[in-house]
Amino acid sequence: MGGSPLFKTIAIVGVGLIGGSLARAARERGLVSSVIGLGRGEQNLRRALELGVIDVLEKDLERGIRKADLVVLATPVCTLPELLLKIAPFRKPESFVTDVGSVKAPILREADQIFQAPSPFVGGHPIAGTEHSGVEASFASLFEQRRCILTPGASTDPRALESVRRLWEAVGSEVVTMDAERHDQIMGFISHLPHMVAYGLVHSVRHAEEKGDDLSSFSAGGFGDFTRIASSHPEMWRDICLMNGDAILEAMGAFEKSFREIRKLILEKDGQGLEEVFRQSRQTRAKLLKEQTSSEPAPIEDRK
Amino acid sequence: MGGSPLFKTIAIVGVGLIGGSLARAARERGLVSSVIGLGRGEQNLRRALELGVIDVLEKDLERGIRKADLVVLATPVCTLPELLLKIAPFRKPESFVTDVGSVKAPILREADQIFQAPSPFVGGHPIAGTEHSGVEASFASLFEQRRCILTPGASTDPRALESVRRLWEAVGSEVVTMDAERHDQIMGFISHLPHMVAYGLVHSVRHAEEKGDDLSSFSAGGFGDFTRIASSHPEMWRDICLMNGDAILEAMGAFEKSFREIRKLILEKDGQGLEEVFRQSRQTRAKLLKEQTSSEPAPIEDRK
Repeated sequence: MGGSPLFKTIAIVGVGLIGGSLARAARERGLVSSVIGLGRGEQNLRRALELGVIDVLEKDLERGIRKADLVVLATPVCTLPELLLKIAPFRKPESFVTDVGSVKAPILREADQIFQAPSPFVGGHPIAGTEHSGVEASFASLFEQRRCILTPGASTDPRALESVRRLWEAVGSEVVTMDAERHDQIMGFISHLPHMVAYGLVHSVRHAEEKGDDLSSFSAGGFGDFTRIASSHPEMWRDICLMNGDAILEAMGAFEKSFREIRKLILEKDGQGLEEVFRQSRQTRAKLLKEQTSSEPAPIEDRK
Repeated sequence: MGGSPLFKTIAIVGVGLIGGSLARAARERGLVSSVIGLGRGEQNLRRALELGVIDVLEKDLERGIRKADLVVLATPVCTLPELLLKIAPFRKPESFVTDVGSVKAPILREADQIFQAPSPFVGGHPIAGTEHSGVEASFASLFEQRRCILTPGASTDPRALESVRRLWEAVGSEVVTMDAERHDQIMGFISHLPHMVAYGLVHSVRHAEEKGDDLSSFSAGGFGDFTRIASSHPEMWRDICLMNGDAILEAMGAFEKSFREIRKLILEKDGQGLEEVFRQSRQTRAKLLKEQTSSEPAPIEDRK
């Protein structure tokens, strides 16, 4: 593809689906001269090297970080604050650091403690993924036409933000920047809440089946599709719940309120009220889809 | 296709997606000599005739019912009890009557009042549909490899059950028979509850947006797919809620209990508990899918 490299060397810590796909995309598009793979699982890194996902396998974290112009942390979200602390002393003075975790505020808080202004750290969250995980599932086009949210901190170096933005744009994403807290609130509502609801649904079916109801064989009535997201990774969702608990609880509270409204309308046999709620839902859904498929990019909320 | 006809004349009251598709399937497969289309909307019936969905357009309900060997009621579910009462006096002595409504117990109660044993009425619910409605959206293969639940009443003529079963099997469905109450309980859980949950989700996003949050543009995070079912027909879901309120409220209660369990685990930052619930959900989901795709038909619970 051969663009001009944005970075000489990128170190990716955690070469799984996201880290591996970013490595592939950056290499295929000529955005980097060399990708160093780092992380705990040596076997996984060997596989990444075999698959041509990374250029260099580096078992020693310090050695790998010292060589990098950009460090991308792509390990499980709960490990990120500690990892940030660990890599900070080794990084090159002119290097930048980013991550791909799906919760941002706790990581930004850690970065604000570690780095003095101007901070080299920019939080990142590519809104992309598949049902599969691991380097075997990685592919270069994963981020094309997807959003990537960047969350710089109050003291982030504007050049760090600019560099990381250019990387994500160069791999095909639409970049949106916002505060870490706002990211966590929005995701709490739009991504984490639906997962909790799906888990709640599947959990309640399980309870009912334990009481002897044979519901499984009738799941063709929409239930199967609906609960697809309830088969996401248990560990990842545990970590998201622990790291974004406040925002998720707030969103769950808002949902429960709406759900109870509907319950009350059914209890009171209020046909007009039910039709109104269902009609509004249909409109909201139509509006969401229209905005998603609109050719105009959605308004970008830039940090002041 | 040319099988031997199961019925000389079928009258379909309400030639929309389901009624129209059944008409098409029965005619294409040679299961009937003539399909009479009945219903309030003359324009719709004219369209059905133009499209070749029905053989005869009959504006007069009485005249149409008098000619039929099988009457299929395919109007909105809330109209069915009254419609049953209306057509009962006109039907041929040897004819049978069935419906396609997604709630069954209130209709069976009405049928038990209207017809003396042996009753010609068998409740029916084909678990099939699309996001579109109306005769224009009808197609002959809609019922292939889908379930159709039949709910005979205590006094239903076994020949009526057998005839209706053969019709559904002949259009490609797997027929399951069960009590109307059990049908409504299962659907309350497996179909109606997920719809209420989806409506609750979309409704809570709407509330949040009214408070000024711009969530819509981030709906790519799974929310859009998840709420697809919240754009179903408001009137239909109003009617289902009114007709199956008790079972839906029970299922909603069970869901709320599970949802609160998860909420409590998040509040208490109980990582182990969360992981356990999420892991179980994944297993339940895997089990559902396995049973759905199994080549063995699921156990059929026959009425005693």
